[in-house]
Amino acid sequence: MSAANEEETRTDTDGVAVDFGDSGLVPAVAQDAETGEVLMLAYADREALERTRETGRAHYHSRSRDELWEKGATSGHTQSVEEVRVDCDADALLYVVDQTGGACHTGHRSCFHRTVDGDEVGERVFDPDAVYE
Amino acid sequence: MSAANEEETRTDTDGVAVDFGDSGLVPAVAQDAETGEVLMLAYADREALERTRETGRAHYHSRSRDELWEKGATSGHTQSVEEVRVDCDADALLYVVDQTGGACHTGHRSCFHRTVDGDEVGERVFDPDAVYE
Repeated sequence: MSAANEEETRTDTDGVAVDFGDSGLVPAVAQDAETGEVLMLAYADREALERTRETGRAHYHSRSRDELWEKGATSGHTQSVEEVRVDCDADALLYVVDQTGGACHTGHRSCFHRTVDGDEVGERVFDPDAVYE
Repeated sequence: MSAANEEETRTDTDGVAVDFGDSGLVPAVAQDAETGEVLMLAYADREALERTRETGRAHYHSRSRDELWEKGATSGHTQSVEEVRVDCDADALLYVVDQTGGACHTGHRSCFHRTVDGDEVGERVFDPDAVYE
């Protein structure tokens, strides 16, 4: 099958055709399946989404390292993906996950652990110095 | 106060210094304050964030129209903002909101009303034909 045909039939064979746009990336929000807490926002490219769907473990594309990033590969704080949702414009993803440990490299359960006023509102669940060398 | 000084003191006077990057935009996730449901993902620039904080009503920057967008200004489906959170890298926002009606122009409560497999999982709460002319 040619690449063009594969693209055309993606909706039928693979569900919703995600619009990765010019950058090749879409924002992907991770939400705790049990508590509903929004854990983090990162970016996914087509490869990261495919790996997520294939493995059931959350994958993103690291913009700073420009590479595929399996969440928790270093820290052990993996995300088991229960469901991947796509928004109405098909240009944003929602990973509904079971989070092991904390999502944030700061040791917090959620990366959204501060208000924009600077108040700490999130729970700290691990010591980052003990996890990241 | 000069613009430069204002920028330097922003962290002290206005809380966390949000990193709007080269594009001037950050993704902003809206979450239902009561149910925890992730309602939508849009983008905010500095003006939209300031207007949100000033008014307590969710504002975004429409990329398609390239203008400030008060959510619900047309549909009446406004978002009253209880809290604005910022993530660890200060380049993504979380609006915790009381949503009137539905967030999605399709009539669904949430824009994330489909799985990436194409299954409908979201609740439809209004008829878009009756809301948008």
